[in-house]
Amino acid sequence: MRIIEIQGSSQPSTIRVGEAFANLPRHLPPGKAVVITDENVLRLYRDRMPALPVLSIGSGEAFKTLETVSDLYEALVDLEADRATFILGVGGGIVCDVAGFVAATYLRGLRFGFAATTLLAQVDASVGGKNGVNLEGYKNLVGTIRQPEFVICDPAFLETLPEAEVVNGMAEIVKHGLIADAGMFAFLEDHASAALRLEPAVVERLVAESVVIKAGVVGRDEVEAGERRKLNFGHTVGHALEKTGVFSHGEAVSIGMAFASRVSVRRGLLPEEAHRRILALLSRLKLPVRASVDPLRLVEALRRDKKRRANRIHFVLLEDIGRAVVQEIRMDELEGMAAEFPDILQTGPDP
Amino acid sequence: MRIIEIQGSSQPSTIRVGEAFANLPRHLPPGKAVVITDENVLRLYRDRMPALPVLSIGSGEAFKTLETVSDLYEALVDLEADRATFILGVGGGIVCDVAGFVAATYLRGLRFGFAATTLLAQVDASVGGKNGVNLEGYKNLVGTIRQPEFVICDPAFLETLPEAEVVNGMAEIVKHGLIADAGMFAFLEDHASAALRLEPAVVERLVAESVVIKAGVVGRDEVEAGERRKLNFGHTVGHALEKTGVFSHGEAVSIGMAFASRVSVRRGLLPEEAHRRILALLSRLKLPVRASVDPLRLVEALRRDKKRRANRIHFVLLEDIGRAVVQEIRMDELEGMAAEFPDILQTGPDP
Repeated sequence: MRIIEIQGSSQPSTIRVGEAFANLPRHLPPGKAVVITDENVLRLYRDRMPALPVLSIGSGEAFKTLETVSDLYEALVDLEADRATFILGVGGGIVCDVAGFVAATYLRGLRFGFAATTLLAQVDASVGGKNGVNLEGYKNLVGTIRQPEFVICDPAFLETLPEAEVVNGMAEIVKHGLIADAGMFAFLEDHASAALRLEPAVVERLVAESVVIKAGVVGRDEVEAGERRKLNFGHTVGHALEKTGVFSHGEAVSIGMAFASRVSVRRGLLPEEAHRRILALLSRLKLPVRASVDPLRLVEALRRDKKRRANRIHFVLLEDIGRAVVQEIRMDELEGMAAEFPDILQTGPDP
Repeated sequence: MRIIEIQGSSQPSTIRVGEAFANLPRHLPPGKAVVITDENVLRLYRDRMPALPVLSIGSGEAFKTLETVSDLYEALVDLEADRATFILGVGGGIVCDVAGFVAATYLRGLRFGFAATTLLAQVDASVGGKNGVNLEGYKNLVGTIRQPEFVICDPAFLETLPEAEVVNGMAEIVKHGLIADAGMFAFLEDHASAALRLEPAVVERLVAESVVIKAGVVGRDEVEAGERRKLNFGHTVGHALEKTGVFSHGEAVSIGMAFASRVSVRRGLLPEEAHRRILALLSRLKLPVRASVDPLRLVEALRRDKKRRANRIHFVLLEDIGRAVVQEIRMDELEGMAAEFPDILQTGPDP
């Protein structure tokens, strides 16, 4: 087991990579606790749930709404949850986002922790304290930033993950290597197929190193004034692609990373050779590096993105594998580049 | 003008007592801003509003809901509010609570400030960073703690206040004197009628001293682990009384303070003479000190209060005028005392 301590602005957060979910009771404070999970997790792991009241939400992004949050508030009232009640989110990114927001706002804030059941949640949603829900199709329009007291990353949960979900997690792991750790990127190059097979030793190292990287970035900048923006590498274009409904989060981010890598070469920041290594690793991890989208529509989607400011956008680029830099790019420059890169973002149908 | 700087955990908050609302533009950061206010304030002060988009909610506690919050999120999306948008709440406690919660959660937190238009908001809601809405009759069940960057307390707003609203504010001012400042309590004894007439010099001093007292308490304990509980003096019973629908907040708190003062005498903490001074000042300020309620129903309401923990309750008592202390009281002890004090809480109709 690897234990990573994160110092948030409000309280410390302890990430336990490799800890068994069965050991959960050791980490719960004494007193009342309530589990928030989703239908899918409950179906798979009902027998392993601790002996606590369980509130279950629908599975999927469609349930990441204020209505779900409101239903949970009412269920907590019915359970007579008070300020001393601990909230335990058991699930993937959506459960963590919803449970974290409910915990951060019920009675102005309850203590909470997570058991992350997907690779994506273990390497991403579990760290950083961002929570929230969508509103009218705007992702994470409503939320707060608050760290869970602990996150348990039990590799046993990953055994039931569909391959598409594994791939989603791999995209974030690649991202963490690209923005901050060339050694981890090289390790992934050497162990790509073992990683996809979820070999425990490889996965535990990748999850733990991802958490360390993300925690380091978040620790230097919890509210995303600058440094934290690096975590958006691949995500600006990625979110826009995800909104088309064609790509999963991981696929969209992978294409976004390939595009940002190409823009980095174009701006003279990244050697062409590094760009080729990036495309090669993404492909070996079964991640896509191209998409058939109209650049004009893509840029229009970017304009609507919540990170927009007037006609410029903060864009994360690479100076090298393992070293990210944030630059401002004008929307029209981005539009031009999107149109110029047919191997990354094609205007026509896939050949 | 008196300027009070408060150091919150997230950012400093500047309270400007005696500042004119017309000077608001000096305090707004450059860039986009949106006003959140209510129908009543808009009706009275439409002409004095700054040249900004204005979102108006219904007036009154009935509109302090998640539905109102959701409507405001959508209106902000329509206005293309982004992370750089500043939210300005202009109104009383309800507007500050709702606008503060919206600002704390839209895009995971926008910058915000208040212009407090009621005496109660100037001395209470403006300081401490608590925000939120009710859910199913539970007051402030949902919310966060976040400090506004500034609060403007313009005495000109108080001229249009109905007397009942002035009395509401006075109850909190008395409370601040009772828990922390015997000198301010004595000043109020000497200037009770001038205070009720809202003589500017008297009001400015009372508001400023109230803010300093509350800010001091909050600064020592932002999340209500201990010290902040003192601000609940009179509010435990007060909230229960308020729920009966018979009393305004100020009236309910006044009766709650009279009751807590009596309990303090009974527990041997407070001299009888101080108790008499408290009842006399409340009466001179046109605040009630008795209520016709069934103690059993009152205690039942206390049990449902969000501050409940099992069968004990944290209760704020006085050791002297200007010195509060928090003690745990069993619910049955409280029930017995409520039944024993016919001059404070009567079981029958008012004689």
